Formats: sequence, C-alpha cells, structure tokens
Amino acid sequence: MEKTLTSWTPRTDLALEIGMELNKNNTEADGYHIEGVEVKMTQNEKFPITTTYVHIQNELGERNMGKPIGHYITVESQDMKDNNPEVHQEIIHIVSTEIKKLLPKKSELHVLVVGLGNRYATPDMLGPEVSGKVLVTRHLKEHAPEAIDESVNTLSSLTPGVMGLTGIETGEIIKGVVENIKPDCIIAIDALAARSPERINSTIQISDTGISPGAGIGNKRKELSEATMGCPVLAIGVPTVIDTATLVNDTLDHMIHQMLTHAPDHAFYSLLKEVSEEEKYSMIKEILVPQLGNLFVTAKDIDEIITYLTTIIFNSINIAVHPGIGLDDINKYSN
Amino acid sequence: MEKTLTSWTPRTDLALEIGMELNKNNTEADGYHIEGVEVKMTQNEKFPITTTYVHIQNELGERNMGKPIGHYITVESQDMKDNNPEVHQEIIHIVSTEIKKLLPKKSELHVLVVGLGNRYATPDMLGPEVSGKVLVTRHLKEHAPEAIDESVNTLSSLTPGVMGLTGIETGEIIKGVVENIKPDCIIAIDALAARSPERINSTIQISDTGISPGAGIGNKRKELSEATMGCPVLAIGVPTVIDTATLVNDTLDHMIHQMLTHAPDHAFYSLLKEVSEEEKYSMIKEILVPQLGNLFVTAKDIDEIITYLTTIIFNSINIAVHPGIGLDDINKYSN
Amino acid sequence: MEKTLTSWTPRTDLALEIGMELNKNNTEADGYHIEGVEVKMTQNEKFPITTTYVHIQNELGERNMGKPIGHYITVESQDMKDNNPEVHQEIIHIVSTEIKKLLPKKSELHVLVVGLGNRYATPDMLGPEVSGKVLVTRHLKEHAPEAIDESVNTLSSLTPGVMGLTGIETGEIIKGVVENIKPDCIIAIDALAARSPERINSTIQISDTGISPGAGIGNKRKELSEATMGCPVLAIGVPTVIDTATLVNDTLDHMIHQMLTHAPDHAFYSLLKEVSEEEKYSMIKEILVPQLGNLFVTAKDIDEIITYLTTIIFNSINIAVHPGIGLDDINKYSN
Amino acid sequence: MEKTLTSWTPRTDLALEIGMELNKNNTEADGYHIEGVEVKMTQNEKFPITTTYVHIQNELGERNMGKPIGHYITVESQDMKDNNPEVHQEIIHIVSTEIKKLLPKKSELHVLVVGLGNRYATPDMLGPEVSGKVLVTRHLKEHAPEAIDESVNTLSSLTPGVMGLTGIETGEIIKGVVENIKPDCIIAIDALAARSPERINSTIQISDTGISPGAGIGNKRKELSEATMGCPVLAIGVPTVIDTATLVNDTLDHMIHQMLTHAPDHAFYSLLKEVSEEEKYSMIKEILVPQLGNLFVTAKDIDEIITYLTTIIFNSINIAVHPGIGLDDINKYSN
Repeated sequence: MEKTLTSWTPRTDLALEIGMELNKNNTEADGYHIEGVEVKMTQNEKFPITTTYVHIQNELGERNMGKPIGHYITVESQDMKDNNPEVHQEIIHIVSTEIKKLLPKKSELHVLVVGLGNRYATPDMLGPEVSGKVLVTRHLKEHAPEAIDESVNTLSSLTPGVMGLTGIETGEIIKGVVENIKPDCIIAIDALAARSPERINSTIQISDTGISPGAGIGNKRKELSEATMGCPVLAIGVPTVIDTATLVNDTLDHMIHQMLTHAPDHAFYSLLKEVSEEEKYSMIKEILVPQLGNLFVTAKDIDEIITYLTTIIFNSINIAVHPGIGLDDINKYSN
Repeated sequence: MEKTLTSWTPRTDLALEIGMELNKNNTEADGYHIEGVEVKMTQNEKFPITTTYVHIQNELGERNMGKPIGHYITVESQDMKDNNPEVHQEIIHIVSTEIKKLLPKKSELHVLVVGLGNRYATPDMLGPEVSGKVLVTRHLKEHAPEAIDESVNTLSSLTPGVMGLTGIETGEIIKGVVENIKPDCIIAIDALAARSPERINSTIQISDTGISPGAGIGNKRKELSEATMGCPVLAIGVPTVIDTATLVNDTLDHMIHQMLTHAPDHAFYSLLKEVSEEEKYSMIKEILVPQLGNLFVTAKDIDEIITYLTTIIFNSINIAVHPGIGLDDINKYSN
Repeated sequence: MEKTLTSWTPRTDLALEIGMELNKNNTEADGYHIEGVEVKMTQNEKFPITTTYVHIQNELGERNMGKPIGHYITVESQDMKDNNPEVHQEIIHIVSTEIKKLLPKKSELHVLVVGLGNRYATPDMLGPEVSGKVLVTRHLKEHAPEAIDESVNTLSSLTPGVMGLTGIETGEIIKGVVENIKPDCIIAIDALAARSPERINSTIQISDTGISPGAGIGNKRKELSEATMGCPVLAIGVPTVIDTATLVNDTLDHMIHQMLTHAPDHAFYSLLKEVSEEEKYSMIKEILVPQLGNLFVTAKDIDEIITYLTTIIFNSINIAVHPGIGLDDINKYSN
Repeated sequence: MEKTLTSWTPRTDLALEIGMELNKNNTEADGYHIEGVEVKMTQNEKFPITTTYVHIQNELGERNMGKPIGHYITVESQDMKDNNPEVHQEIIHIVSTEIKKLLPKKSELHVLVVGLGNRYATPDMLGPEVSGKVLVTRHLKEHAPEAIDESVNTLSSLTPGVMGLTGIETGEIIKGVVENIKPDCIIAIDALAARSPERINSTIQISDTGISPGAGIGNKRKELSEATMGCPVLAIGVPTVIDTATLVNDTLDHMIHQMLTHAPDHAFYSLLKEVSEEEKYSMIKEILVPQLGNLFVTAKDIDEIITYLTTIIFNSINIAVHPGIGLDDINKYSN
C-alpha cells in the first residue's frame, strides 16, 4: 500500500533521526549506510559534545531521506539544557564555526536573521527570542556609518509571527522584506520536533537547505529556500517538543523490542508480524490523533531552557557574522 | 505482590478518575459502585457542562479511593478551554455556588486564598495567577474601614512559590502566615495532573479536604489541611498536564482493548494474560521514567487557556466570598 | 528668532493638544479659532466620555497645526484606565463607529492592522498587543474559505518591531508586506506622547492621515501614509508617556501662572517678561535633555492599563472591520 | 514652622542624597560635615566605580539624617545599566565583599533573602527577580543533606508580594515565615526612589539597618528591622524611579540656581527670597501631587536594565553567603 499524504507517520525534523530510522535494521555498527548520504561524527575533546555531519549528496539521497540535498550539522550535548556556561561557550564556538562555513564568502556581507515560531507558546518562542537578541547593525550602516567599522558586517532581523496570528503566510512576509532590503543570506531560527526524548533541548541542527513545508512544530510556513527567496537560506533548529503520537508509537516499539529480547519465542512474535507498520500507524492515527491533536510533550523547565538555547544561538550568530566579535564577547552585544 | 511506594502507577489528582479506574471492570452502566463512596451527576440545562459529586463517606471509602473523607465536586466542560464568555459565565455560576456551599457559615468571614505552583512554568502558573487576581480587602478593613461596607468579606491572598525556588516547604510559609493573620478558611488553588487527555484544561475539581502530599504536578508540598493549618482548607484544582508515562500506559491499554475487540481470539490475548498490570507498570517505570522524567504532556495553546481558567476561578471566588459581588460583576474587581 | 530644527519644544502627538496650545491666548470661551481648522466636541449621554473632532481642512490649517490635512478624532475618558467594563463597552461603541466612518466603503474589504512600537518596553507595547489580538481571517479566506462567510471581512496583521531591534526601518518592512498582500487599507496602532498628565492613558486619537516622521515615543519610523504605502492609512494612538522635559516645562508654566494670578504686581512679573519662551526652552534643553534623555514619565500601573487599552482597541477594530461582529461579541474573538 | 507629616518634601531613599542635600550650602569642597555622620569615599582602580561609606554614628546623626544609626554603603557606576560584563563582574566583587562584611560571623549561617516590591510593575520588580534567582539550599540541607557540602551555607528565599495584591502587610508575611524557619539574618532587596536622574539604575545601596516605613517607591511595608524581626536585616536597594514632583522641584531649583549664577542682581533674587522652601513645597504639593500622583519617572529601557541589576545582585548574594562560590561562578548557580 502506498503511503498517502494523510497517513500518520512518526514525526521528526532532524536529518540525524531520519537517517537513524532508515538505518535501524542495519547490522553494521559504524553508523549509516544510506545511498547518496555521507555521514561523519566527531567528539569534542574537552566536553561531552558530539557533532554529526549528514551530507545529502544527490537526488538519490534526497529521495531516501525525504530532505533536500545539502548539509545538516547536528551538535548534541546534554549540558545544553543546564546552566553550564563553560560547556555553553564551547558549544557556541562549535556552532559559530559551522555557521561561518555555510555563510557566503564575501566582504560587507548582509545577513537577515529570521525568528520563526509563536512567541506566545513557550516551546515555540526560540526563533522570536533569538531574532530579538542578535546584534543588528544595518540601520547604523545607513544612519550612523561613523558609529561602526569593519569589525561588524550588516545584520538585520525579522520576527514575522505565525499565520494563525497574522493571517499571512510567513513566507509572504519574509519575501516582501527580502525584496526590499536584499540580504546576501538568510539565517532562519526555528523550534523543531524530534522523536527521541533525549534529543529534546539538547540538539542544534544547522543546515544550508532552508526550511521545507510542514517542518517545525506546527505546519507554519511554505518553503523558505534559495528557490523562493533568491538568496541562500541557512536554518538553525532545536527540537523542543515531541509529537505525542510519535512518542507513544516509539515507546510501543521500544516495549515490543524489549519484550522480544526477553522472550523471543513468544506468541506475541506471531502477532507482531501481523501488525504491520502501516496498520500500527493508522491505529495510532485513529485513536490518538483526534484525542491528542492539541497536546504535545515538552520539558517541565522549558521556560528556563529556552533562555540557555537563546543565549547559545544568538551569540553563535553574532560571532559567525561579525568579524570583530569573538568568544570573549559572549552576551556583550545583545539587545 | 504488594505495591511498594516506589512502584510506578498511573497518575491522577482527580477523585473522579480514581473512581472511574476502580470501577472500570464494573459491568453496570450507571456509574460507580464503590463501598463508602457516593456519586451523583448533573447536567447543565443550557450548556454542555457536567457536574459530578463524589462523596467519600467513611474510612472504607477513604481506603478504597486513596483520598481523604470529604466532598469532591468536578465541573467539566470542553468549552472551558475556548474563548466562550457565555459558557464561562455559567461555569462561574456553578463553581461559585459550589464554593459557597463549602465555605464556613459565618458573618465577617475571613478567607485566605493561596496560589500554589510555579509561576515560571506555564502549566503550573494557575495558582499564582488566581491568587494575584482575587479582590483582596483585608488591608482595607484595617487601614481604610470607611472605604468598604458589608458587601465584601475579608479576603487576603498569598503566593508562596515552590520549594525548589524558596528552599522552604510551601506548608511552612503558609502556616507562618496563617498563625499571624488567622483566617477562618483557606482556599488553595493548584494545577493538577489528570489521566484522560479530554479532561486536560476542561475540568475544575473543588474539594473540602485540602491538598495531600504528592498531589499536583510536582511533589511540591506537605499536606495542607485543617489538621495542619487549624482552619478548613478548600482546594480548587484544574488538570493542566498529563504525566508522560501515564499517557503512554493508558494509550497502550486503549490500543490493546481495541485490538481485542476486533480480534478476540488473537494470539495476543494469551500474551496479554501474561503481562500483568504490575509487570506493565514496572516495565514503563524502567523504560520511560528515566527517559521522560522531566517531560510532560500539555496543550499547545496552554498560555491562552491559563488566562481563561484564571478568569473563571478568580471570579468564582470573588462571588462566593463577597456577598455584594454577583455574575454582573465578572472581571470588574480584579487586580 | 526662528525656531531651528534642533531647538527643544514641548512634545505632543495629539492634534487636540496642539490646537489647545495654539489657542491658549485666545480669550473666547468656546474652543479653538485656528484658521483652516474646524473643531467640534460632543459629550456622551450615559458616561463621562468626550469626543472631539479636529478637522484640518486645508494647507493653512496644516501649516498652523504642523499636522497633515485630515480628520483627528479624540475620545477621552478617565474611566478608560480603570477596570470599568460598562464604560469600556461604550468607548468601544464610539471608537468602532469612528473607525468605520474612516474605512474605505467597499465589499470584501481587506484591512491590514499594523502594531507599531517596542513590545519589550511596557508603555510602548500597545501596538504589538493589539496587532496580536485582532481577529485575523485572511488565511482562512485563502486556505479554508468554507470556514467563513460574509460576516467577516479580510483582516491581516503585522508586528514589524522597532528599528533598534531589527536594523530595518519600520516603513520598509510594512511596505514590503503591503506590496505582496495588497490590502485596501492599513490601520496602524501606536503608543503616543502627550503633554497633559490627565490625558495619559485616557485618550484615544483616531486619524485618517497616517503617521508622520518623528511622532510616537521614539522617532521610530519614516512616514506611514497613503503617499508611501499606496493605500489609505488610519492611525489609532493612545498617549502612554509624557516626555520628561515637557512635563517640567509645563509644570513651570503652571506654577508661574499660579503665582501671577495670586500676585499680579509681583517683581517676578518683570522677570517673566524677560524670560522668553525661546530662552526657557533652550534652558530646558541645555539642563534637562542631557540628563533626562533616557527617562520618561509613565503611570505606576501601566502594565494593567495596557491590558484595558488593548481590549478597547482590538474589539473596536474587530467590530469596525467585520460586519457580523457587534458589541455582544466583546472579547469573544481574540487570539 | 515645623514640618507636618502631610507636607510634601522631595523624596529619596538614598542616605547619600540625604547627606548631600543637608550639606548643599556647605562651602567646603571635601564632602559632608554633618554631626554624628562619618563619610568616606573610594574610587575603583580599574573601572569608573565609586563606593561611598556613610556611617550614622549616633542619635544626633540619626536625627540629622532622618535615618537609623548604621552603615550605608553606596556603589555607583554608570556602567551598571549597560551590557558590560567586565564592569559588572567588578561591581559584583565589590557588592559581595560589602555584604559579607555585614553578615553575622558564624558557621552554618542561615540567610533568608526577601524580594520586596510588585512583580507586575517593571521598575518595582527588582526584589522579586532577585529572590527568584539566588541559590537556595535550605531544602537540600533538610531533604538531601548528602547532595551538599560545606561549600554552601543555608539560604532560603521569600517573595511576599505587595499589600495591594495580598491584603496583608508585607511585614506580617515575613514575620510569620521568620518565626517558623528562624534565619540568622535577612537580606531584603527593594527598588528605591532617588532624586538625581544620574543615580537612577546606576547605584546600589547596602545597609545594615533594615527598611523603614514609607521607604521604597510605594509605601509598601511597615518597618523591617532587627527590632521587628528578631534577627539582623540587611537591605540592598537600587533607585529605579524618581518621584515626579521631586524631579520637577529639583529641576526648578537647578534652573533658579542657573539663573542666579548668570544674573545675580536680578529682580528675581528678591522674589526668590520670598518664596521659601516651605511655600515652594506646598505649591508643588497642591499643583502636582493631585495630577501626578500616579505617575513616575523611569528609564525607557528599564526592562533590560532590570535584568542587569538582577544579575549583579543575585550573584553578589550567592558569593557573599556561600563560601564555595566565587567570581568564576557568575550566573552558574541560578534558578
């Protein structure tokens, strides 16, 4: 049976998790083997921080992953969600370096930072928080050029809001502004959904492919990409929620796996063969989605964690974009 | 095997849901039959609002329910979580009437409203929001007696904060203040946990038994009751979250039930008999609790819903406590 | 001596106050007599609400008033800043009626509501609060036309932020969006500065002339008008602050006036003649502006008052724009 | 004429400013000469930070100053209100050192931090912000003694709210809690009023005399002192507002002074002699207080400044109270 658009499937915005899912029956120990996709992983020497590079190389990889060709860098650390300034500084170092690699190489660069998401829903306010904190300079270049020097590039910022509150597609707002101010590059920040509880609030995904329709924690925008915007679009996302039906599905899988491990000859095995993935999903969709459509899973201390994530990302952007700002300047230039 | 204190069990703070769980194998259609517990249900004539009265009559009922002797009134309406002023007004009418029944009958009544919970976590801020909105008059009685008349009773309000932020048991703070200001009665407001997704944000529980240890969405206080405080303690609670492990457990049950209904002779049936409740719980506890301990399930638009719930409850308290305030005065007297 | 652009003058955004100032030496009792300006005043029959219509009729009036040709309607009531739902309802009635008169007369009207100002500074957050609350429908017209009928017009909403936080002129953001979504009319909401303490938070000014550069509590935008936007621009403003130097200046005038009244032959009189307006202003500018540049005068309970003003204005806009929404629906349709 | 309680006088909570006022006709250049008061001033070597020690030594000093016997340390820096982490670190060093000097000298010290003021009014939320951020440990000492060691003392925290919202005198709430938890010392944080615009948000006053009635930006409490609480009370305050009538009065004085300097033989001089201080105050009181009673002067970016002040003070308290926390741990231990 072919999957229809309306069939429910577990939901993640992380390329890393899509790869892991595709690869889960792979018996080789050393990571992914997906056609058209290259994966590399590095471990920080000082702190427990893992960086994974997923490169979707061609159309085959694109089809396999269900994500556009491009680079997806994932920085993971459980210390991200705690008040740990030393590890945060190292994460800022890594994230700013990765952003810098993906920025256009030109002098007098103009970057537009776009904070996506709903500022009135705590787990979705990451984008608006970051776009409200980056060091904007574009107005100074225009109105007070003597106030700035070559230590800063041109940075502007936009917080378009969500369609339910504006009545306007986010992409329409951004496009209108982009046509007027003509940036060299967009950096879009967004809260994401993940599958794994341990990745919530502890993973930053950076990509050079923009944001595809249907991504994020609400289906909040049309595609935001070089094709629609006319300039490269980097995306920075952090998963802050798990879709409730996805969590139930994965827990069920986990439990079944556990049961099979303990009693492989069990009668349940025969049952399992009969309950196909498709059936399971459609059951979840029927039972859960109506009841849980408006619920999601999030962290108890999400209010506090959002401030750490905001700090990490806005400082990373400041350092990546402005040549004269470095790790010594953390929190020094914010609004 | 006897349940130990540390074993995981599905979690609810609603007497209604405890009764339903105890009663779930009951084949009679007309509600509960639990020894020592009396249950009555009424339906509002104008709007879809259900009021359920659970009366735990004696020690037998107390043991069966795991909740103290007393009255538990539950007002349910799906319209509670929407912007529906007309239904809200009817709910305020019902809730204020039920509160008034439980208040001490005396003239010049002094009520202390206590807002429990953490104001920095959205689903837990209901208590602090309400205690910040009720019409306080105690200072006027003392400092400006000419400014008020018999249309208002004496009302004071306290927002003690949570132990993790104060270092002090909530009960210690309240007790210290109670000893100084000697109210006739306490009304404590708290955000609760429920089991059923459909009860989230759509149920108000009023009881005259105070608040027991371990209740609420964090284990945030010792008992708050007439025994500890020296005056009657009414509790008003609204479930705003579901414990994640509880949700997974209940969904699993639901799915198994559904599967059995469709294929009663299935091999799975034999499996099911072998997985006892105990085993299932301990499996959930092992797998889920470590991973999900810090996550919970809440509504996407919880920020907005909290404002509706706050409005309903603070107006209900104003009307119940102050003789001169009625349904025509909704939102008129707030801070 | 001609006034230079850099000389300090008392600051107000209210046409009403400009008129009163111009007219202050006028000995006739019955209001203004300014060439090119027509003024009418009405008193509400039920409540203490005054509505003043200032019509700048031609270029002479424009030059006299320093404001563009057009209509300026001012609705004043001290009850605006208190929790008084009955008076607020009457004010909503008046304000919605005045807005409706100024809206383009056409069916299937599309209005874009723009919330100006800085959401992070309490007295300046009125615009963003209102634009976040109006009933937006444009996305429904496009994505779910069956969900709506002729009881609503097309309404969209934008909250551009302030230049200091975005690096982009507010007008550039709005223009970009306007070119994409092509509304029939813009309604811009903004917090203003007034001169008179009694007008703070108790006055709503509605005009059909847009917003001129330099208005508002920070010099936050270029002109927002039909000339720049290509469609009519209504402006709704409420003074929430007084410029500190303006307050000191006016108090000084008041005191001098009081002293002269009590002791007309006083030696001070001779002094006064010597201190011209110009000298006084330049003294204030020298002494006060450097010291007070970053300070302003606002109400102690501004946080609470902003919620009342928001409620009045977003409901007025909903009623004015959507044919099917009336006074019975206050607070029913908000985000 | 003796001043009555109801006569208006310029308002400040800073001992420093009271001393300067008393001393303003003093022609000697080197600071104060007030009987019973000793004053010392030091300048930081690295940054523009001034520390002034005002010691009210006896009852004569108390009478002269209108403030209780004790130490008042004022730390001043214009960089306090900017995002300047380096200067802030030095200020934290100075403030924590001064607090430590005033704390009781004993092992296993128990300090109760009390955040005074109204969290819903931005310039008054400093107290609640700080009391919500300090590192509380008292509950760990009781419930998880193995989790902590001698690097921390016992710290608890209370945010009592304001009388207008609780109906209870702040002192009654604190006293009730103090009687139950018996701290060795209280540190009370409060937003203050100052006279000089340049001191707003750039001055921290630390004293060992508690808080007197009528201090602060609203008359929000009875005395909070060792006499009423039974343990020493340190007070930490920052002026965040100027009383509007005070500002007008001081500006007037300033202007008159300026005029006299430029034209000493002026007719105005004779006038001035006739307008006594008393008359001027009573005029201000008559004209301004009714009109301006609910207005105050504050900074445009007060929302942002409050976060800097909070950071400085909560870190200073953490370092002063907990032996194992130092300047390297800034922002590491907060809620």
